[in-house]
Amino acid sequence: MKKTALVTGGAGFLGSHLCERLLADGYRVVALDNLYTGSRANLVTFADNPDFSFIEADVTTLPVPTPQPLNLTFTEIYNLACPASPVHYQARPIFTTLTSIKGVLFCLALARRDGAKLLHASTSEVYGDALVHPQDEHYWGNVNTIGIRSCYDEGKRVAEALVADHIREHDVDARMVRIFNTYGPRMHPHDGRVVSNFIMQALRDEDITIYGDGTQTRSFQYCDDLINAFRAYMELPKDRVRAFAAEHGLGAPVINTGNPGEYTIRELAEKTLALLPGSKSRLVSRPLPGDDPKQRRPDITLAKELLGWEPRIPLDDGLARTIDYFKSVALESGRQPSTATDGHR
Amino acid sequence: MKKTALVTGGAGFLGSHLCERLLADGYRVVALDNLYTGSRANLVTFADNPDFSFIEADVTTLPVPTPQPLNLTFTEIYNLACPASPVHYQARPIFTTLTSIKGVLFCLALARRDGAKLLHASTSEVYGDALVHPQDEHYWGNVNTIGIRSCYDEGKRVAEALVADHIREHDVDARMVRIFNTYGPRMHPHDGRVVSNFIMQALRDEDITIYGDGTQTRSFQYCDDLINAFRAYMELPKDRVRAFAAEHGLGAPVINTGNPGEYTIRELAEKTLALLPGSKSRLVSRPLPGDDPKQRRPDITLAKELLGWEPRIPLDDGLARTIDYFKSVALESGRQPSTATDGHR
Repeated sequence: MKKTALVTGGAGFLGSHLCERLLADGYRVVALDNLYTGSRANLVTFADNPDFSFIEADVTTLPVPTPQPLNLTFTEIYNLACPASPVHYQARPIFTTLTSIKGVLFCLALARRDGAKLLHASTSEVYGDALVHPQDEHYWGNVNTIGIRSCYDEGKRVAEALVADHIREHDVDARMVRIFNTYGPRMHPHDGRVVSNFIMQALRDEDITIYGDGTQTRSFQYCDDLINAFRAYMELPKDRVRAFAAEHGLGAPVINTGNPGEYTIRELAEKTLALLPGSKSRLVSRPLPGDDPKQRRPDITLAKELLGWEPRIPLDDGLARTIDYFKSVALESGRQPSTATDGHR
Repeated sequence: MKKTALVTGGAGFLGSHLCERLLADGYRVVALDNLYTGSRANLVTFADNPDFSFIEADVTTLPVPTPQPLNLTFTEIYNLACPASPVHYQARPIFTTLTSIKGVLFCLALARRDGAKLLHASTSEVYGDALVHPQDEHYWGNVNTIGIRSCYDEGKRVAEALVADHIREHDVDARMVRIFNTYGPRMHPHDGRVVSNFIMQALRDEDITIYGDGTQTRSFQYCDDLINAFRAYMELPKDRVRAFAAEHGLGAPVINTGNPGEYTIRELAEKTLALLPGSKSRLVSRPLPGDDPKQRRPDITLAKELLGWEPRIPLDDGLARTIDYFKSVALESGRQPSTATDGHR
């Protein structure tokens, strides 16, 4: 019998890539999404696969701990449901926090019910405006509890706490990844984060907006690299994952996934323009917004050791693939891309 | 018509003092408590007051956003419901996190419904194992998301985020206090925190347990001082509270309340023994547990400025009153006090 996987946020940028990969790996896949930032367009390449089904539902309104709409037994659950870009989560901050909390509680309840493995997608945002660089999993973070990003950051932090306590209190087979900046095809064109902003601005011959002096750095992970990490992590047995966390003095299994290659915002803008030589865009500066992280780079020592994994797609390749995607979206929909109104994510 | 106040956690240590004070100030008072750490014994001095009523209920199971059991209109809401001592919250970590989250959501929904003022009791634990000393309201904290204290710390952190976003998104008239170590009569004898531990050990002629070398410091606020701060804070109009937060660059109204007088754990043990000269207890050392804060002292500059408030009860006076209370409890109930199994809170 086929393994059955649930992917919350399955119609989102990362969720749809994961669904596609799980189908290719022979799974039956159920994607659950409220289509707030996800879209049916992300599902088109596999929507007709008989092993795939889609449930339009919102994790904040599904009953916990006995989910009724899902009369299936899952072997693996991937919790990816949450608005993740500032433009989207700041538009609905309370909803974002509740999605983070109720989404993980829903998945934890399902994982308990079915004895399923659970992969919870956490985020580098739990490190906040990090005071150490690069960030490893032992760093406790620097987050403002009452700032305009706290709806996301604190929602994701308490989700980690809930996962850790479900492992300790109910022996749930859960594991967590803290995902650093990831990009690729199916990113939301209005996402507001730096890769999509720059590409869309360059495609439309608009000025490319650099906040501050552009020397702040980011790391950029191509989506396929991340999905490889997910799959490798879920292949491991519970005991191995827990022993590894314990060996490393972590209260629960959590690893960073990201690409440690570090680029300044200005370098990213220049690379984007180099890949679009016909663009008439110029680089312009704007003031840096509040709470914008100055640096963000993952230490992926633990993921390398535990998973035998590391990112393989160079930034130039990934950017070229992403640009191809955005070109096709712009042609198909004629949508007006938004201009960034926030810092560089 | 009398003002009507709701106190969640109203049968707890602090909640019961607050109820008593609100009754004295002429309020109708509803206390809501699940009696997990609170008790009916804490209510006896005012339970017969016709202006007082008690609802035994759990904020984690009450409906939000339309609370049915409370067909009352409140003018003031005080959210004090949450297990606050490690002994209690570590016994039920998931429940503790949910109490923090659902409790504040319940109160925020009620405050919206009634246009009530809301005072949310946050905690110095949002600062975690602080890397700055003393802590002021601008410090973002140092908390382990997946440690054995994260159920409380992260639950309280995300509650602050939810309050801040309800102010921004729904204009709720909320204000927050971060409460530092507070002691006094009606502390739970099995609370496990340092003041009650030391007093009970001294009363029973047991060894007084000092974790580590006893040079870690704590500040100790007498309960009546805290209640004075609550009342002064709630007297202020919304505009004043918000303008003050904005002037000080805080994303939402939050102030520390505590007593900045700093004592080592060893000094506290010695003061306790000095007030109980007949005790045969000796001081003994044990290893320091994980995640134990090394220092904790409030900067109360903002509370002084905003409220014209400062703590007035010296430690020796407060300790003497607390010892009198524990003597009476020990005499009445013959309960066996627990010995500390955790660090000094």
